[in-house]
Amino acid sequence: MRLIKYHINQRKYYQRHFRSLLSLVFLLICGFSKLAIFSFASVPSGSSLGIQDKKELIVSQYRDVALKIKDLGLKEERAYEFLKIITSAGGRLTGSPQAAKAVELTFSLMKELGLDQVKKEPVEVKRWVRGEREKARLISSKLGEKDLAICALGNSIATPQGGLKAKVLEVQSFEALEALKEKARGRIIFYNVAMDRTLLDSFAAYGRAAQFRVRGASQAARVGAVASLTRSLTFRLDRQPHTGQMIYDERYPQIPAAAISSLDAELLSRWLQKDPDLEVELELSCQTLPPVISANVIGQITGKEKPEEIILLGAHLDSWDLGDGAHDDAAGCAAVIEALRLIKASGLRPKRTIRAVLFMDEEFGGTGGRAYASAAERKQEKHLAALEQDRGGFLPLGLAFGRNEKDLQALRLVENVLRELGLHWIRNGGGGVDIAPLAEQGALLGSVIPDSQKYFDYHHCSLDVAAAVHPRELELQAILLAFIAFFLGVENISL
Amino acid sequence: MRLIKYHINQRKYYQRHFRSLLSLVFLLICGFSKLAIFSFASVPSGSSLGIQDKKELIVSQYRDVALKIKDLGLKEERAYEFLKIITSAGGRLTGSPQAAKAVELTFSLMKELGLDQVKKEPVEVKRWVRGEREKARLISSKLGEKDLAICALGNSIATPQGGLKAKVLEVQSFEALEALKEKARGRIIFYNVAMDRTLLDSFAAYGRAAQFRVRGASQAARVGAVASLTRSLTFRLDRQPHTGQMIYDERYPQIPAAAISSLDAELLSRWLQKDPDLEVELELSCQTLPPVISANVIGQITGKEKPEEIILLGAHLDSWDLGDGAHDDAAGCAAVIEALRLIKASGLRPKRTIRAVLFMDEEFGGTGGRAYASAAERKQEKHLAALEQDRGGFLPLGLAFGRNEKDLQALRLVENVLRELGLHWIRNGGGGVDIAPLAEQGALLGSVIPDSQKYFDYHHCSLDVAAAVHPRELELQAILLAFIAFFLGVENISL
Repeated sequence: MRLIKYHINQRKYYQRHFRSLLSLVFLLICGFSKLAIFSFASVPSGSSLGIQDKKELIVSQYRDVALKIKDLGLKEERAYEFLKIITSAGGRLTGSPQAAKAVELTFSLMKELGLDQVKKEPVEVKRWVRGEREKARLISSKLGEKDLAICALGNSIATPQGGLKAKVLEVQSFEALEALKEKARGRIIFYNVAMDRTLLDSFAAYGRAAQFRVRGASQAARVGAVASLTRSLTFRLDRQPHTGQMIYDERYPQIPAAAISSLDAELLSRWLQKDPDLEVELELSCQTLPPVISANVIGQITGKEKPEEIILLGAHLDSWDLGDGAHDDAAGCAAVIEALRLIKASGLRPKRTIRAVLFMDEEFGGTGGRAYASAAERKQEKHLAALEQDRGGFLPLGLAFGRNEKDLQALRLVENVLRELGLHWIRNGGGGVDIAPLAEQGALLGSVIPDSQKYFDYHHCSLDVAAAVHPRELELQAILLAFIAFFLGVENISL
Repeated sequence: MRLIKYHINQRKYYQRHFRSLLSLVFLLICGFSKLAIFSFASVPSGSSLGIQDKKELIVSQYRDVALKIKDLGLKEERAYEFLKIITSAGGRLTGSPQAAKAVELTFSLMKELGLDQVKKEPVEVKRWVRGEREKARLISSKLGEKDLAICALGNSIATPQGGLKAKVLEVQSFEALEALKEKARGRIIFYNVAMDRTLLDSFAAYGRAAQFRVRGASQAARVGAVASLTRSLTFRLDRQPHTGQMIYDERYPQIPAAAISSLDAELLSRWLQKDPDLEVELELSCQTLPPVISANVIGQITGKEKPEEIILLGAHLDSWDLGDGAHDDAAGCAAVIEALRLIKASGLRPKRTIRAVLFMDEEFGGTGGRAYASAAERKQEKHLAALEQDRGGFLPLGLAFGRNEKDLQALRLVENVLRELGLHWIRNGGGGVDIAPLAEQGALLGSVIPDSQKYFDYHHCSLDVAAAVHPRELELQAILLAFIAFFLGVENISL
């Protein structure tokens, strides 16, 4: 027996059931608001069910939907197939040929999957290239010589041709640098700040340590240094340099900025204790080329009743270049595409439009996200909710959504259904660089939050390849996204 | 300010505070039992705090303990070091030289860590050996020939020397075998039953499919078959044969039993559709040798006040032989040892004894667990609680403990503290083969439950090596075990 008819017109229903609606309002006033937020569209007309019964009926119908999506997803695990398509383009630096390839691949993929209004929305983006030469060598008259595993940070300028050579000043903070500024002139400033392993939330540890990658070069230039070398942002001790964006402060001269692997950071620190006069030779050939026209890639399932109301699922298509950008963020893109496929393949027809947006240029400044939001405003599109996936393709643990408990009220109705899909919690939070501008247009932001313990093992380094993503974990993200997007595409989410 | 003094004598306290105790009982009767189950031992005497304040004080003290354990664990990640010591012995089949080596290694390790009463408790165990020859070949006059990735199941007899060759009957259930029994005589029965990928709980999927591995050979022998070939128990499609225990039903003749990799199972099934008369050549040289004396390895932190009351943390030291038994169950052993180290290194002195037991022979019948329980009964030891870790070294998600909500009452007090250690839920359940016999002596059983999505990628196959375990995930298990064992080692857990 199929009880659900998702696209029954809500207004008609309310006209027919004005009395039930009155008692509903009464119950709401009585404080039973949690019981009453669901759409009555799905309850069969002429039913004599009580409020609690109706609630249970609706939840049981959503449970059926959830299980259908889950079974289909876990059987086929197609998110991983999509991830491999995207990573096949290679590392997708904003403006690169690889990024352009990924735009074409995902555009074709969305077409093949039969999504509606598939398009490439142009975005002008920065074009930074790493260049061919990238090396560092430790030279100590006392201890010998050693190559260091380093990489240029995104945005960095090159060293003079042939490289530079300078003594090294190690610091653990900007305050320490300020205190030692007399010694900084002509040196390479070495920020040896490890991510704090005692923090359970690896993103919190990243947030604290990332300032030295982002602002370290300009702070070093401020006190007369010739280059900066920042310890890679990871909990692991290995030989992987992790790249990422740095930003020049226009008040100070631009100097080259590189990241050094965690093991080499420890080595350099040890050698510096024994020989403070050691030197590092650094050569980078990165440069910024003229801007390039790239694109956000967009496809959707158009809503049957309220096509103008949009539930957005987003992720970013660009990546860093050292690996294949698998966890960051082919995984998010793949999960978003698979979510829409699962909704379609499960025969579900949401009232509202569910749209997948693969944003270009998250890593170099979020131009894709801003361009999308501007276009949305111009077109007077109404984004009710936007979820961004950009924390890797790991096991999903929770749903972060909205700004307060009221924003979560509708989702609480199906909290137990979400638990059956493996979710452990729902709380406020979520969002991302690309969807942030939509909040100003009234969209509620969110994310399905995966386990973060291993994310920075792979983040922005050469290990971030498809083999590091687990097909089943990624699929579980897609399944949750599909169900949540469908639910938000049907129910009243803002009371 | 250090408020906690864990080993204040509870009795003395109760004498001094009889009136507070009376009001406590009153509150308990009033149904506020959840507020009142904690030990008052830790509240400073002479305090004029209310019940709720005392509760908050105690919780905040446990929070301090938890953070201390967490910081130490995550900084040092020593569980992984212990795991590598254990896996360095290789695959540790019950009764094997590798298992004996692991007994010595962990005995020395516990000594080095300064645990109390470290000992090897003898256990007589089965000794099954795989032998040198283990192969299968598909032979079809229509389609050609192909080697199949197979392995003998634990307990299986060998094939006749030089192997056997027979036609194959594929079935998906014992009912199907019964229906086809006229065709079974002289054949190899091929149980091609995949683990159900749509089940979120991989152990549930395993439980359903494992019957064909365990009972398949005897059911095949019952209808006159010459051997059995069972599809490997995994969600993955790969070329890994997964071994595991099979059991002969003494009513039927013993025939050789092997597992076939999931990809080869699919291949064999496809070929059978095209050529039902194809044959499989199977050769196994496994055998059962006379029993061997092995050992459980035991160490403890002896309780300061009630040393006779024991909180047990257990895991099994034996493993299968195809890999190094890293997830199954060096991870459990390492987490248990690290838990005791963390308690000691954090300067904590529990009232009760916290004991680590590395059980021998979980995989071939649980003789170690039974021997331990018998000895405990003989010595009139009182096990209040026992936690067994045997679900791999993955990210811990929840705590399964006890039989009913009453058993969880004490732990609910620190539920939020456990959440700060990364735990998402507490519910009834848990336990394991080795500690099950202790339930008869009144012990409450439990386990810290890790994520199960990837467990059967590694389970009982050659991929189960140290590199498949993540140091931080494993450490999080040890941290939780340490905190929970310490809490149970101090608080009243049975009202």
